[in-house]
Amino acid sequence: MSRNGTRIDAVMGEIKSRIASRTYTPGARIPSVRAMARALQVSVSTVLEAYERLMAEGLLNSRPGSGFYVAGPVAPLVLTELAPRLDREVDPLWISRQSLETASDAMKPGCGWLPAAWMYEAGMRKALRTLARSDTVKLTDYASPLGHPPLRQFLSRRLAGTGIEAPADHIMLTESGTHAIDLICRFLLQPGDTVLVDDPCYFNFHALLKAHRVNIVSVPYTPAGPDIEAFGAALREHAPRLYITNAGIHNPTGASLSPVTAHRLLKLADSSSLVIVEDEIFADFEATPAPRLAAFDGLSRVIQIGSFSKTISASIRCGYIAARGEWIESLVDLKIATTFGGGRLGADIIYQAITDSGYRKHMEGVRQRLAQAMTTTVARLRALGIEPWITPQAGMYVWCQLPHGKDAATLAKACLSEGVVLAPGNAFSQAGTAGDFLRFNVAQCADERIWDVLARALLLAPLNK
Amino acid sequence: MSRNGTRIDAVMGEIKSRIASRTYTPGARIPSVRAMARALQVSVSTVLEAYERLMAEGLLNSRPGSGFYVAGPVAPLVLTELAPRLDREVDPLWISRQSLETASDAMKPGCGWLPAAWMYEAGMRKALRTLARSDTVKLTDYASPLGHPPLRQFLSRRLAGTGIEAPADHIMLTESGTHAIDLICRFLLQPGDTVLVDDPCYFNFHALLKAHRVNIVSVPYTPAGPDIEAFGAALREHAPRLYITNAGIHNPTGASLSPVTAHRLLKLADSSSLVIVEDEIFADFEATPAPRLAAFDGLSRVIQIGSFSKTISASIRCGYIAARGEWIESLVDLKIATTFGGGRLGADIIYQAITDSGYRKHMEGVRQRLAQAMTTTVARLRALGIEPWITPQAGMYVWCQLPHGKDAATLAKACLSEGVVLAPGNAFSQAGTAGDFLRFNVAQCADERIWDVLARALLLAPLNK
Repeated sequence: MSRNGTRIDAVMGEIKSRIASRTYTPGARIPSVRAMARALQVSVSTVLEAYERLMAEGLLNSRPGSGFYVAGPVAPLVLTELAPRLDREVDPLWISRQSLETASDAMKPGCGWLPAAWMYEAGMRKALRTLARSDTVKLTDYASPLGHPPLRQFLSRRLAGTGIEAPADHIMLTESGTHAIDLICRFLLQPGDTVLVDDPCYFNFHALLKAHRVNIVSVPYTPAGPDIEAFGAALREHAPRLYITNAGIHNPTGASLSPVTAHRLLKLADSSSLVIVEDEIFADFEATPAPRLAAFDGLSRVIQIGSFSKTISASIRCGYIAARGEWIESLVDLKIATTFGGGRLGADIIYQAITDSGYRKHMEGVRQRLAQAMTTTVARLRALGIEPWITPQAGMYVWCQLPHGKDAATLAKACLSEGVVLAPGNAFSQAGTAGDFLRFNVAQCADERIWDVLARALLLAPLNK
Repeated sequence: MSRNGTRIDAVMGEIKSRIASRTYTPGARIPSVRAMARALQVSVSTVLEAYERLMAEGLLNSRPGSGFYVAGPVAPLVLTELAPRLDREVDPLWISRQSLETASDAMKPGCGWLPAAWMYEAGMRKALRTLARSDTVKLTDYASPLGHPPLRQFLSRRLAGTGIEAPADHIMLTESGTHAIDLICRFLLQPGDTVLVDDPCYFNFHALLKAHRVNIVSVPYTPAGPDIEAFGAALREHAPRLYITNAGIHNPTGASLSPVTAHRLLKLADSSSLVIVEDEIFADFEATPAPRLAAFDGLSRVIQIGSFSKTISASIRCGYIAARGEWIESLVDLKIATTFGGGRLGADIIYQAITDSGYRKHMEGVRQRLAQAMTTTVARLRALGIEPWITPQAGMYVWCQLPHGKDAATLAKACLSEGVVLAPGNAFSQAGTAGDFLRFNVAQCADERIWDVLARALLLAPLNK
């Protein structure tokens, strides 16, 4: 091939690779012939010929007087197509939808919430009656940008209880805990950034991060928090922008951070630009609060988020973000731009319920009930040869390993056909190393039929090769 | 300078421009020395020298064995920094925050909602009392992925009233109208895509689209809908992915689409991959519904969204998307990933209120009240030399031109210092051609002090040079 032919090929190759890497996206105008020639240090005629061949190949379009464009419509963001197709049984979105779609009386030992009858129903009814008599503005007006002031003041006091100093104007209400993390991702991340998660972690973190088109890197979780060696290595190797984890009770393992792990983790982060989000959605289930990264760090690089959907009501959407003041400012702008305001009424209902004298007593009862259910469930699981990774001190989850050679996704499929929704381990594992694990929700395990179905499915499940 | 020196400079220049354009983002690995040399048709040593000089300049980092990276932390998404800094008085986010932050008894002729006392308060109270007695699951459980079925069935029937055939399972509930558009943007757009809006249009569309880092192109709005010539030209020139507009009453002009414009617009879109979002948030204010693009198009390329915040309550966040079935499927996944579920209780309160026998009568009253306020306000504006662009048939907005040479932003600043929040025209205009326009909300113009402040500020306002 002539020297000129090689150059044309090189220019075509460069443009194709920019299209493949989405540096040039469909519909976008690419640099002019002249600019490209200058940039690539080749002649104008070489670039023109390359552009014309790419048009012939259907990769570019031209519009008279307006330049050259990448051909083809932009593909819509279909989350299920972003990752290599997962088996439906370990696809996080499928598990969420399955749990949300099935009737509330279905058997869902894999789901992530308490049975309706365990929630703070009396408080909810009382709050609704109170608000039915409240003034008009509360009932019909938009919330203020940061959200309902009394709830933010309450949260400020509650955060102080775990050693976190956050004035009410460093707290912004959101539509949910997930919405809180989503806003933080929008604020900090760009497509292609790297985010650290625990392995295993709450499966919806994977789905949420996929929607942000970022790289997910996971760090093994130990009974005392993330594996510090692996965390340090991930920091060095991937320069992640964000680490998302649970504060207090970890989902799905039920473990929690030890003070020494918390301290080491923050020391490692010292020399990086890492931001840490800790999600304390299960805070009210803890008998004694575990250390909070936000407390050690003084809300400098740590952002704390939470919600009320696990204890008061998932029917009302309300969450919060506590962070540095200047970050809260930008997060408020993003919230208004993308959802306009928050729900004033929802925040007010939560405030009424959580400050009700009955709430503390209600949660004491829930913690006792959970402790009993944990003991019973662990014993029944062991009787089937299903071994808890640890016995959690608190919360609703127990993370268990199946008898040798049994596959959780296969088991989940078999149980689903009999009306029992399980949560197989690899939905929680970015590395895909939890194929023989399941997460059980001890509050959802009382129905005898669950144990019949599970025992039968376990017996019939083939061994992995 | 030697030939080699020039080449090194050219490579450095190319990389700097890719960093500046965010083709290479901070933290990202750039191509290897070898790959870059191949792509730019220069020697390996030229590229290596360029990389090393860029490291010396602090623009690149290297990690042993791992390659070269763009230095510096990723800049967070600060909406107010994405666009050339606007005067606060015409910054859409500032106007939203100003309206949301000021006390509810402040004077806000520029705000976008009815006074609390005009809302369907009785219905809200009744709905809250009803729900305080409802079953536990309603009060505490998550909503189904698509959202409260009775509300979706109601919406399906209501859409049929404007000629739109959408079964309940082609309708998904969202947290708000803005949230509905945000999910569609996430589904369809990538940074750098082009989106068409009306000029003028609802200012938060600008803020929302900025958060998606897309190019905004605006098309002049006429009293019969978008200017069809300009719309066609924009389609040809910019190949936009999306067009966002109002269905029914247009914000801020109060105009509405004529059947002939609707037909021509869809015919123009025929040969493109354009998707159209029509926002019918003001539907219940129309006496006779204007044509809906979704009806002409049969929900093929048109997506309809709406909410209840303008008529029932903004304190409860609830909106919807009606679209093609396969799009709804992907939108549900995105909703779950980014906010988990929707609010069951909020949707139920809206359903109770909107299907209450009193709602229709309440809205008749609101329409009459608005018609009277429109007449009064238009007369008072004219008395000050402020001329309505058209006299709207319905709704709360009137779009007006100031006396010759007066500047709306200056006027807004002067009025704000006296406690009156106005909405200056350029906040609504992407092209910045509405500097002498204001949007008035006739329902918020009853307070005599508004007219005093306005008259005085108008008198004192300097003429534009």
